[in-house]
Amino acid sequence: MKLKNPPVNSLSLEMLTELVINLEKLENDKAVRGLVLTSEYPGIFSAGLDLMEMCGRNPAHYAEYWKALQEFWLKLYQSSLVVVAAINGASPAGGCLMSLICDYRILADNPKYTIGLNETLLGIVAPFWFKDTMVNTIGHRASERALQLGLLFPPAEALQVGLVDQVVPEDKLQSTALSVMAQWLAIPDHARQLTKTMMRKPTVDHLVKQRDADIQNFVSFVSRDSIQKSLQMYLQKLRQKKS
Amino acid sequence: MKLKNPPVNSLSLEMLTELVINLEKLENDKAVRGLVLTSEYPGIFSAGLDLMEMCGRNPAHYAEYWKALQEFWLKLYQSSLVVVAAINGASPAGGCLMSLICDYRILADNPKYTIGLNETLLGIVAPFWFKDTMVNTIGHRASERALQLGLLFPPAEALQVGLVDQVVPEDKLQSTALSVMAQWLAIPDHARQLTKTMMRKPTVDHLVKQRDADIQNFVSFVSRDSIQKSLQMYLQKLRQKKS
Amino acid sequence: MKLKNPPVNSLSLEMLTELVINLEKLENDKAVRGLVLTSEYPGIFSAGLDLMEMCGRNPAHYAEYWKALQEFWLKLYQSSLVVVAAINGASPAGGCLMSLICDYRILADNPKYTIGLNETLLGIVAPFWFKDTMVNTIGHRASERALQLGLLFPPAEALQVGLVDQVVPEDKLQSTALSVMAQWLAIPDHARQLTKTMMRKPTVDHLVKQRDADIQNFVSFVSRDSIQKSLQMYLQKLRQKKS
Repeated sequence: MKLKNPPVNSLSLEMLTELVINLEKLENDKAVRGLVLTSEYPGIFSAGLDLMEMCGRNPAHYAEYWKALQEFWLKLYQSSLVVVAAINGASPAGGCLMSLICDYRILADNPKYTIGLNETLLGIVAPFWFKDTMVNTIGHRASERALQLGLLFPPAEALQVGLVDQVVPEDKLQSTALSVMAQWLAIPDHARQLTKTMMRKPTVDHLVKQRDADIQNFVSFVSRDSIQKSLQMYLQKLRQKKS
Repeated sequence: MKLKNPPVNSLSLEMLTELVINLEKLENDKAVRGLVLTSEYPGIFSAGLDLMEMCGRNPAHYAEYWKALQEFWLKLYQSSLVVVAAINGASPAGGCLMSLICDYRILADNPKYTIGLNETLLGIVAPFWFKDTMVNTIGHRASERALQLGLLFPPAEALQVGLVDQVVPEDKLQSTALSVMAQWLAIPDHARQLTKTMMRKPTVDHLVKQRDADIQNFVSFVSRDSIQKSLQMYLQKLRQKKS
Repeated sequence: MKLKNPPVNSLSLEMLTELVINLEKLENDKAVRGLVLTSEYPGIFSAGLDLMEMCGRNPAHYAEYWKALQEFWLKLYQSSLVVVAAINGASPAGGCLMSLICDYRILADNPKYTIGLNETLLGIVAPFWFKDTMVNTIGHRASERALQLGLLFPPAEALQVGLVDQVVPEDKLQSTALSVMAQWLAIPDHARQLTKTMMRKPTVDHLVKQRDADIQNFVSFVSRDSIQKSLQMYLQKLRQKKS
């Protein structure tokens, strides 16, 4: 499955909805047992959440957007398929989150391809389920430091801290993803799926129990004047950078 | 204490019951403060659960077997003794579990001596308390991957991932176990035991609370036709290999 | 902030109370955003809890002392400031705990500057919230071993196990602390503080819920004849060593 939302694969409301629909289709197709997630645009895996969905909209829109993001996380984190991330570009914030909920992460060895939950750099805070996903992957202490400092790790550091499982030359990324997939598909599906569920269910339950409160929390946070201002300043900087 | 159930130290119902009785005897003997667990048969530490106890029996037998396994885990994981595993052979599945609940693991450096919870390879699933024990030892991410893929780690990899604490040449295994034991016995028993309890109690409580449900779950899982078939196929393969 | 309670920066009742008061003052001072914690006496960061407060006093005193220690832990672990530990000496037991609740730990590279929760060596047991803090930092397995054996780690090992984040030559300690501080202060305070709270709140809640029970537990433990005897023997040994 190739991520395709030009120019930077932002996780817009439309993109999230389509990803969930496509994922459900694939899961219902008995011929499909695994999925490689990669970007149509080498250089950027995904820029993460779409700030346009979080700026200058009304509370109902914010709530709808956040619910769609939760839905995407819930579906992909619990997918019955083997999901391998072939990360062929930068993956900050939501892009990193998307990688973390796959079963295996391979990062192309390019110093520009950094990965991390860098929300604090924008003056915002990763929600608790982003944090839970990161703690499951790299542990409590490394997460505490990475989340507070909004660290974006280049490949060698990402591998060392455990954010990715493997770093390979850029031209070996897709072939490596396919051989990793073959290894995972050699395991009986039923046993693998039950094991995956056992590992991830407590983290899933944590969000499911607090889903509405988490939406309310996001809506009231993002509606604040101070947050709107800092997001708009950030967007303006991005636009100036582009032009 | 030497594991002795020829030919491969399977954890049969009888073996589990004897292990618990011997452990209780040693704990009640005030002259005994520590225990080195090793195999009478270099080459195989323990092949793990005895598939003969899980094939072609009735539900009452399955329930009795599973309860004995839980009992063994509860006793050894909470033992007041210092328990050092001197792993002188392969230890898949239940053999790995037995190592994980000791206080310290030393593995003889032989590429054939692999260790891991490889249940998925047989089409079955490690129960949650096997998983909890593994997560306590090597963390969430490494467990997620190892359990889904049913990985069996050779010595160097087992050391790197943290499944064992030390890898030594085969002829140094027993002497190393004794010097490790001396280090642990230098600590006042009472303080060490309270600390061990503090570390392990939440994991123990997790099983204790769900003990009956876990038995029911095992009985209904293992009674399924599909599981019986795949276990019987596996047993047949083992027999052909032997002859 | 320089720790100054001669000769070994013991965490006496007075010292703990003053630390909390100073911390509150700094947090209320809007010009202050960060704090470097170091010792006035190179060679000893802090010897930890003051055994004089735990020996030959009455239960009310023990309760007061323990409550002050909890208060110190609660304040520092949740401080809104960036707290960097510049560890310029040995930090056993409570000294180690104090380091663990900072945001970042730098240890001067001197083989005498060991760090660890070595309570079992004195025949006592680190309370559960010391344990929680250590597990958050170095994980479950490393904590289990370190706590049971009362390990004191020299710099290279402390770095490897993750008890400290960085080891630097002694004459670079303060300058490194300042550049680390600059990195942390580059993050918007509000986002960093909310992230810190999110990471630490479950651990804080664990103590808050059991605070009174924990005090009772300490008082009855330390009041035991056997514990009083072993503490007094330990104090006597220290005195003989000194003279």
